Amino acid sequence: MLGRMFKVSFFGESHGKAIGTLIEGCPPGINIDSDYLSNELKKRKINDPTISTQRREEDKFNIVSGIFNNHTTGSPITIIIYNKDIDSTHYDQIRFRPRPSHADYTAYVKYHGFNDYRGGGIFSGRLTAAMVIAGAIAKKVIKKWGIEVYAHTYSVGHIEVGDVSVESIKENTYRNPVRCADPEKAKQIYELIKETRMRGDSIGGIVECIALNLPVGLGEPPIDTLDGDISKAIFTIPGVKGIEFGKGFQLSRMYGSQANDPLTIRNGKITTERNYSGGINGGISNGMPIRFRVAFKPTPSIYLEQKTVDLQSMTETEIKLKGRFDPCITIRAVPIVENITAIVIADHLLRWLAWEKYLEGS
Amino acid sequence: MLGRMFKVSFFGESHGKAIGTLIEGCPPGINIDSDYLSNELKKRKINDPTISTQRREEDKFNIVSGIFNNHTTGSPITIIIYNKDIDSTHYDQIRFRPRPSHADYTAYVKYHGFNDYRGGGIFSGRLTAAMVIAGAIAKKVIKKWGIEVYAHTYSVGHIEVGDVSVESIKENTYRNPVRCADPEKAKQIYELIKETRMRGDSIGGIVECIALNLPVGLGEPPIDTLDGDISKAIFTIPGVKGIEFGKGFQLSRMYGSQANDPLTIRNGKITTERNYSGGINGGISNGMPIRFRVAFKPTPSIYLEQKTVDLQSMTETEIKLKGRFDPCITIRAVPIVENITAIVIADHLLRWLAWEKYLEGS
Amino acid sequence: MLGRMFKVSFFGESHGKAIGTLIEGCPPGINIDSDYLSNELKKRKINDPTISTQRREEDKFNIVSGIFNNHTTGSPITIIIYNKDIDSTHYDQIRFRPRPSHADYTAYVKYHGFNDYRGGGIFSGRLTAAMVIAGAIAKKVIKKWGIEVYAHTYSVGHIEVGDVSVESIKENTYRNPVRCADPEKAKQIYELIKETRMRGDSIGGIVECIALNLPVGLGEPPIDTLDGDISKAIFTIPGVKGIEFGKGFQLSRMYGSQANDPLTIRNGKITTERNYSGGINGGISNGMPIRFRVAFKPTPSIYLEQKTVDLQSMTETEIKLKGRFDPCITIRAVPIVENITAIVIADHLLRWLAWEKYLEGS
Amino acid sequence: MLGRMFKVSFFGESHGKAIGTLIEGCPPGINIDSDYLSNELKKRKINDPTISTQRREEDKFNIVSGIFNNHTTGSPITIIIYNKDIDSTHYDQIRFRPRPSHADYTAYVKYHGFNDYRGGGIFSGRLTAAMVIAGAIAKKVIKKWGIEVYAHTYSVGHIEVGDVSVESIKENTYRNPVRCADPEKAKQIYELIKETRMRGDSIGGIVECIALNLPVGLGEPPIDTLDGDISKAIFTIPGVKGIEFGKGFQLSRMYGSQANDPLTIRNGKITTERNYSGGINGGISNGMPIRFRVAFKPTPSIYLEQKTVDLQSMTETEIKLKGRFDPCITIRAVPIVENITAIVIADHLLRWLAWEKYLEGS
Repeated sequence: MLGRMFKVSFFGESHGKAIGTLIEGCPPGINIDSDYLSNELKKRKINDPTISTQRREEDKFNIVSGIFNNHTTGSPITIIIYNKDIDSTHYDQIRFRPRPSHADYTAYVKYHGFNDYRGGGIFSGRLTAAMVIAGAIAKKVIKKWGIEVYAHTYSVGHIEVGDVSVESIKENTYRNPVRCADPEKAKQIYELIKETRMRGDSIGGIVECIALNLPVGLGEPPIDTLDGDISKAIFTIPGVKGIEFGKGFQLSRMYGSQANDPLTIRNGKITTERNYSGGINGGISNGMPIRFRVAFKPTPSIYLEQKTVDLQSMTETEIKLKGRFDPCITIRAVPIVENITAIVIADHLLRWLAWEKYLEGS
Repeated sequence: MLGRMFKVSFFGESHGKAIGTLIEGCPPGINIDSDYLSNELKKRKINDPTISTQRREEDKFNIVSGIFNNHTTGSPITIIIYNKDIDSTHYDQIRFRPRPSHADYTAYVKYHGFNDYRGGGIFSGRLTAAMVIAGAIAKKVIKKWGIEVYAHTYSVGHIEVGDVSVESIKENTYRNPVRCADPEKAKQIYELIKETRMRGDSIGGIVECIALNLPVGLGEPPIDTLDGDISKAIFTIPGVKGIEFGKGFQLSRMYGSQANDPLTIRNGKITTERNYSGGINGGISNGMPIRFRVAFKPTPSIYLEQKTVDLQSMTETEIKLKGRFDPCITIRAVPIVENITAIVIADHLLRWLAWEKYLEGS
Repeated sequence: MLGRMFKVSFFGESHGKAIGTLIEGCPPGINIDSDYLSNELKKRKINDPTISTQRREEDKFNIVSGIFNNHTTGSPITIIIYNKDIDSTHYDQIRFRPRPSHADYTAYVKYHGFNDYRGGGIFSGRLTAAMVIAGAIAKKVIKKWGIEVYAHTYSVGHIEVGDVSVESIKENTYRNPVRCADPEKAKQIYELIKETRMRGDSIGGIVECIALNLPVGLGEPPIDTLDGDISKAIFTIPGVKGIEFGKGFQLSRMYGSQANDPLTIRNGKITTERNYSGGINGGISNGMPIRFRVAFKPTPSIYLEQKTVDLQSMTETEIKLKGRFDPCITIRAVPIVENITAIVIADHLLRWLAWEKYLEGS
Repeated sequence: MLGRMFKVSFFGESHGKAIGTLIEGCPPGINIDSDYLSNELKKRKINDPTISTQRREEDKFNIVSGIFNNHTTGSPITIIIYNKDIDSTHYDQIRFRPRPSHADYTAYVKYHGFNDYRGGGIFSGRLTAAMVIAGAIAKKVIKKWGIEVYAHTYSVGHIEVGDVSVESIKENTYRNPVRCADPEKAKQIYELIKETRMRGDSIGGIVECIALNLPVGLGEPPIDTLDGDISKAIFTIPGVKGIEFGKGFQLSRMYGSQANDPLTIRNGKITTERNYSGGINGGISNGMPIRFRVAFKPTPSIYLEQKTVDLQSMTETEIKLKGRFDPCITIRAVPIVENITAIVIADHLLRWLAWEKYLEGS
């Protein structure tokens, strides 16, 4: 379960009956219509076989509870997405021959062999559909208080987009299949992924996420910092290996006089002249845009021959995968990062509102 | 509160009466003696006025509960460290003139002006003494199951240590005031911090942490991943702006064929030929060393003049700090990162043991 | 969410699409077959229109996740029961005219009118099917460690069963429609409910629950006591107004010399000569059977005319219910109490095992 | 930890260095002065050696963190009460010869003999001082929103007070040493305890608690019901064996037509004609006073000879206690029940405010 007031769980296995999400603590009265949820789910699709898997998930969802007359009821929301286009034929190959750097081996040991190994089970990218649905509701929750979240592809391999405006992100990200805010870079990234795929390989990348219009005060240090809670949530996404806020790792190479964001006043409001902090100081939102980047490793599932072990005979062996895998999960992760972030913000928004209302008095 | 089975809270303000920690769920029978705790606390001290603050914290701790006859009782452990060498004279200057990139401003707004602003309150590095104490107990907890954690200074500014052996880390880290596993680099880092301090500036850096001998299976995806829980815990440390596991952000620039860690068998045990994954796959420990790096920004408290605002008059102004600040918190954070990590591992170890014992049957 | 290691959530509304449960933290490898779950669900049915509602729920469940090849996988388990025999025609009557002592009014206010009021929404007895399913899995979990739970009807109205042996409970409870361990009393209770129903009224009762073979040591005081956690869980069942352990409220009228359970040794094991404590001392199981009683109020839904208010016009009015209601929820609550209790014990068993295994050492 | 937004932990052992409480999530700006806390602590004292223990706890508390200039800061509050008048001489007698119906035996087994057995360790009534302190702060929190809590002695042995007005409770409870709202009954109870004590025995009783002015809507079903959360919290108090809300167990013997509280309108507000529900329907506060009763068993520590076992030799033996024990913990539990209840209400108040503020919109 993620969250304390807006609480989210995920469930389901890639080749099981369905995947889904349970949300507890969502306020009542939020308009949720099916078209909106469908559109959110579509963002996960690349629909370009040149650079993406051929699994054609239908992603029909089923609202099981918590939404009545197109509005949240205030009771637990459960939404299920049935698995349709399942092809488990190629998965016996990995049952006892784990893919390097995949969860195959750790899952086998942790679950004592009882895990549903087909399609990667709970470790499949398939689960991210549930993340998108939960986050779609979270985005509606925070929207009522003016907060918006946007993610985009920051880099794939060595092709890096660099600084882009929020306007470019809003306008361009979903206009190209690589979810890139810069149309020129988008083409380069497309070519890189295509070439990678043709070689049977995969490639990593970075997703950047921006959250706008947070009030000052979200985050509950010393333990429940806003950046800490975002980080924990982001690591639920398969393939994440790092996260950095604001200038992040670059700050480790800076002097304080370079790194500090001078405070100033604009239009009668306190703001900072730059945003190297990424909108968070001391674990609390400072009113500037939250900005962070997430490093994704290359999909571990590649078509090239790899060394592995046979878990039954305990011998060294090779594996050469068949099946349908994405050459670059980064581009598919863009809406996931965005929506997972909304979940954390929805939770902290509610926590913050409790104090604000309390202090207003009755 | 961090954790589910081994649960840790921190409390206290920099210039209040004391700081401390509460640990719930610690198993009984673990030997904790005062010398051990004292030694752990000493690791936080640099004791070299050339590169560190002159605040001389005594760090006398007081075991309030949960330890009896030098052993944990199984009941809540509370340990308090009284604040001694307090000098609050310089803090009125920042009460209404927040330091750029510090929590002064966010705290003022979030707590509606009621926060104890003296010495940075709960946002002070002072609280890390409580983190060290809690983590010292966690290290004892995991030691019984053979697990060890070591951190060291990976870089300061542009001076980077690069790959070092575990042996070097164990041997050298606490032999120099900059907590560096490489004696040569240690000298360079020392000079860099000294020069930075003389200019009234501060500088960032990176701490690396390694955890050894974890069994395969720690971590509870899809939500409570081991890397996610470590990340959340690490962000409780002041100044953290990023974290990456294994090859981290570098993986975003790699192909899968380069990034995957081939599985192999050594001495009858499954292992990987390299450890680009940093010991975690799918949020679960894979038996290889856990390895991650943490980016620290430069201390926001510098002696150079900075632009800020006056919160009372809502006007732009300047601040030039007096007081006692560290020019490089990275080197002081080494034992904090190490001990905070132990807390998360202790928690996940207990969770893992529950299942393992359960499956053994009665 | 109930629990810390074995974590259970419920969702769904009475006249919505479905109800269900999500279980996180269930160990892998537990055999769960559909027949077992069906049988557990059947225990909720009275199948005697003389004393029970005529709603004929089909209770076909759908295992959505977490069970593979008839065994738990270790991943989140979701089971859904679709609502079939729904008749919402009579519910518009209560939308703005709340039933006295029902949740109609509190739900209307809390959820700002957005709650699914049909059939009582989440407050319906319908949700207890989800509780039974979750508890059925919990019973399997604790069975592996020898623990069993049994509930039975202790009283309805003034007809009280009094002390009955565990053997009687096991043998008789499900042999009569009122779930009573004493066949003679069962007849009297049957007549009482029948007569109550004919008058359009409802009646209260008490369910007793016994848990056998718990090891000494379950419970985590000072906060997470075993009796406290059982109590919280029991109050999730609609209609519960009280709980007492061992001799319970009678102990408030006793002297210590009467109330204390003398310790003694039988077959080389420590035991107590009687069990007025109900198997718990200091919030920790003492090895004797856990024994507690749960007070159920009469169903608030009766067919007699009652005073209420009109929420729209804010005037006093009357309500005379139509629809299908149980005259005595107590007898239907027997398997619910039993299974909810198993959930709490499963959770505390896992917590206890973590320490036990830890102390064994690696 | 109790609570989700207003989170409370207790720590400390009876004959250890201190006991205390940690409160996380308390809003800033609440005035807390030492006199108030002292007065609250004094309510735990009976100061009449005829009916109470002679342990003279000083109950000097030490505010360690979270309060600055007599106001809460919004950061974790830690308050410690040092143990002073400790006499451990008589406790070796019980180390291996557990008192019947006490936690001596369960603690010995659970903590593998490492628990601090002196004075009952964490199971001592001593810990209730920490509960009072935490609850005193909670009472201030809820007072700002108009909510008040009052407890009183409802019965001791067979002497029962019966229905008393809120005015009587407020006026009389602390005017007599047995915390009774009815002065006449107070005398009878006094005599009963005195006589019990002279015989070396102890006696049970019931505490009733009333919470006034809660808004409609506190409680978060289906899991976190208000009555369930109160119950769990109440069971942290030593000696509790049962709890009932409203008419409680009596409702199990009633018809619905007798039990239901008719809704009506008074002064333009919805209310009920009676309050058999005890102010809660469906786990949610209904605007009427919360009213519940808590059954306390007699103190297990009596001066009469009792059968027990020797844990080392595993033989049957006797115990005849020396030391200082209360003959009736019920009367001392009155302020504990009151203040523990305030903790739960403070938590649910904040949760409720989050939604209310959220729905107001920005």
